[in-house]
Amino acid sequence: MTSIDKAIAFARDNKETFLEEFKELLAIPSISTLPEHRDDVRKTALWLVERLQELDMDAVELVETAGHPIVYAEWLNAPEKPTVLVYGHYDVQPVDPVEEWDSDPFTGTIQGDYMIARGASDMKGQLLAHLQALSSIAKTGAYPVNLKFLIEGEEEIGSPNLPDFIANNKARLACDFVLNCDGGIHGPGEPAITYSLRGLAYFELEIRSAVKDLHSGLFGGSIANPIHVLSTLIAGMHNAQGRVTLPGFYDKVRELEEEERSLLAQVPYSDDAWLKMTGARELYGEEGYSTIERIGARPTLEVNGIWGGFIGTGAKTVLPARAQAKISARLVADQHEGDVKAQLEAYMHQNCPDSVTWTLKEHSQGPGAIMNRKSVFMDAARHALHVAFGKEPIFKREGGSVPIVGMMQQQLGVDSIMLGFELPDDGIHGPNERQHLPNYFKGIETYIHFLMAL
Amino acid sequence: MTSIDKAIAFARDNKETFLEEFKELLAIPSISTLPEHRDDVRKTALWLVERLQELDMDAVELVETAGHPIVYAEWLNAPEKPTVLVYGHYDVQPVDPVEEWDSDPFTGTIQGDYMIARGASDMKGQLLAHLQALSSIAKTGAYPVNLKFLIEGEEEIGSPNLPDFIANNKARLACDFVLNCDGGIHGPGEPAITYSLRGLAYFELEIRSAVKDLHSGLFGGSIANPIHVLSTLIAGMHNAQGRVTLPGFYDKVRELEEEERSLLAQVPYSDDAWLKMTGARELYGEEGYSTIERIGARPTLEVNGIWGGFIGTGAKTVLPARAQAKISARLVADQHEGDVKAQLEAYMHQNCPDSVTWTLKEHSQGPGAIMNRKSVFMDAARHALHVAFGKEPIFKREGGSVPIVGMMQQQLGVDSIMLGFELPDDGIHGPNERQHLPNYFKGIETYIHFLMAL
Repeated sequence: MTSIDKAIAFARDNKETFLEEFKELLAIPSISTLPEHRDDVRKTALWLVERLQELDMDAVELVETAGHPIVYAEWLNAPEKPTVLVYGHYDVQPVDPVEEWDSDPFTGTIQGDYMIARGASDMKGQLLAHLQALSSIAKTGAYPVNLKFLIEGEEEIGSPNLPDFIANNKARLACDFVLNCDGGIHGPGEPAITYSLRGLAYFELEIRSAVKDLHSGLFGGSIANPIHVLSTLIAGMHNAQGRVTLPGFYDKVRELEEEERSLLAQVPYSDDAWLKMTGARELYGEEGYSTIERIGARPTLEVNGIWGGFIGTGAKTVLPARAQAKISARLVADQHEGDVKAQLEAYMHQNCPDSVTWTLKEHSQGPGAIMNRKSVFMDAARHALHVAFGKEPIFKREGGSVPIVGMMQQQLGVDSIMLGFELPDDGIHGPNERQHLPNYFKGIETYIHFLMAL
Repeated sequence: MTSIDKAIAFARDNKETFLEEFKELLAIPSISTLPEHRDDVRKTALWLVERLQELDMDAVELVETAGHPIVYAEWLNAPEKPTVLVYGHYDVQPVDPVEEWDSDPFTGTIQGDYMIARGASDMKGQLLAHLQALSSIAKTGAYPVNLKFLIEGEEEIGSPNLPDFIANNKARLACDFVLNCDGGIHGPGEPAITYSLRGLAYFELEIRSAVKDLHSGLFGGSIANPIHVLSTLIAGMHNAQGRVTLPGFYDKVRELEEEERSLLAQVPYSDDAWLKMTGARELYGEEGYSTIERIGARPTLEVNGIWGGFIGTGAKTVLPARAQAKISARLVADQHEGDVKAQLEAYMHQNCPDSVTWTLKEHSQGPGAIMNRKSVFMDAARHALHVAFGKEPIFKREGGSVPIVGMMQQQLGVDSIMLGFELPDDGIHGPNERQHLPNYFKGIETYIHFLMAL
């Protein structure tokens, strides 16, 4: 039996234990954006510290930040071998609308092939699969590479304290490449490697007309209604071709080459499956591009939330004083996330009527990234997926944002290998988020093959 | 000393006691739309029953309904004199946004000339002023007219149980006219009589695209965003001239005659004062009409509330499954409140894209009304205002809706005399609602003069 076989056998023999451990991690509600969950976030970090100590790391550290702590660890006893910096995050998104969940969001619930809970897919599942791969290797042999771990608790709020930590610890974080477990594939039998991610710029816009809420009978029809104004502004942010109208928004966008369009056309995808997965009646997006291109290679702008006036039960005849919206853009190469604010401001100057005032607040932003598809590390990932899934992986672009990938390119000068197993219909960030368990176990095996192949 | 002088003297001697009683009534949070305040609404009704018993009514009754109770009372010992049906409501609007109040909404707080609290102006203040006028008469003499009282607890939720009560009690409610205390004047020294009210039709619109909230990175740009769709629909509900675009919306609107435009032009009003009162930067409304005409004699459509997606603190990158809005129309003679739903539906059929589904729910509706400006009762009101304020009142149209006025016309065949003392800047339905106290005391005297003149 080779050392690979031994590790794989261990992983297969311990599925039940692994699932119990999975539930344990899911049970801690580490919602980083909600102050009332501050202690839970910390508890999750401490849970990881313990796991990493059990994995015999040379050093494990809980690094305090201005926000939630970072978990750092290292094992550097494989001279002549590459050094892998494993990146992950242990925080999760909020669970609202909580009434749309069929089971408790923080009780890992197995239903058929799925584990259902907030974070099951994004990304407690991916992170734990990697740790369980390492455990399978450690229990049956020795680590084949040098390992460093950087696991943050603020990814879902835009990683406000990570850039400083990386900038101040460049030597400590030095590595040959980053293994980023926060990614996904296209289907349970469809291995894939993400080589491109979109950037993000997130804002909050407030429109204010009156100094306070007014009676809609006494004042309605005499001054501007901020909900009408905000609605008109949002309506104007896309044109009839589904293109974003912010001035200069497309100026720096790298157009797709024919070669890459062919590559993306191989990504398994069908309109029917997409409609079924989303429940939408029709596809909708920028004219002239396929859905896969729209999501991976074209920038978009979405209103993520809107509110104003009376939103309780019943009827209140109010002319509201203000209306607000959360608006975010997803960006592709070579757009710069720092440019969007000025574009939104220019749009507002051009389009917002003088009858109201407006303020634009920046929430978070992160760079996109494009990686070299032909490195030796990428090749090891391709090989591992091929063995674990019995099929050659496809190379794909991801619509989501993993700002850390761009940050690692900029700060440490290294590419990231995106090797995660989220599925498009896992419902991440939404109700009934789930992890496909057969995929989870294949993920563990992929990580074993990958590390052993380096 | 005449009996009028005696009553007036009593009212002037008892201001402190009257204010204490006012605070007592304001302290009960009778928010009819919120189920958790059900008991408070009832408590307020019982408080009124006690007050009416102290006023020596022949009969006082707490009438149960499917919702909040109605308070009914009568005193019919003035043969040959007219019978006045006094209408009021004892419920109030919710207090959100509660953080914008400078004092507790249910603690009557005197600041300078004002009593600040929810309901201080709409309409616990008006109702109590009338009862204190009756008390001043009763303590110094006898009632000069026959009295009936109909005080409901569901006006702020559209009076769902009042039409049945009126329809089933026509004989009991028979009267010469209704004295409706739920109205206002234009300024502290500007007595006025409202002879027209707008009707109301209130709806909730929901737009749904996906079956659940999705990740804006993974799905953004591939299917319709319901917030964008709702915004575009709202944006299209008014044209560039500020006119409502619902099909047929203006078909039945009675155009203003020149004589009435001249009358309305006498209503004291200035753009500057209006802008100062609202805090708006500019006036905005239907082209071709003055502000007073826009509010009193033209129909309007306002979005009273909007919500969808993530509206908490921070940033959540969600592509929401649905977006909702509360939308209401204010209607003038001769529009029918029952027609608006079909107009909104026609608009949706014409304008809503096939990429989403929509549902339209009706909340409440009420008729508008126009009254005879030249009746003997109207003349007694004019006289009373003239004496109390030392100035001839103006006749005005009201932008708000008092559905009961139209209902009384339809069911009992009588006009209503609108005699209330709310001011346009009282902030009714909004934070820091207030009652101008000098006006309150003039109101008490007006009611005394009015009843004595009948």
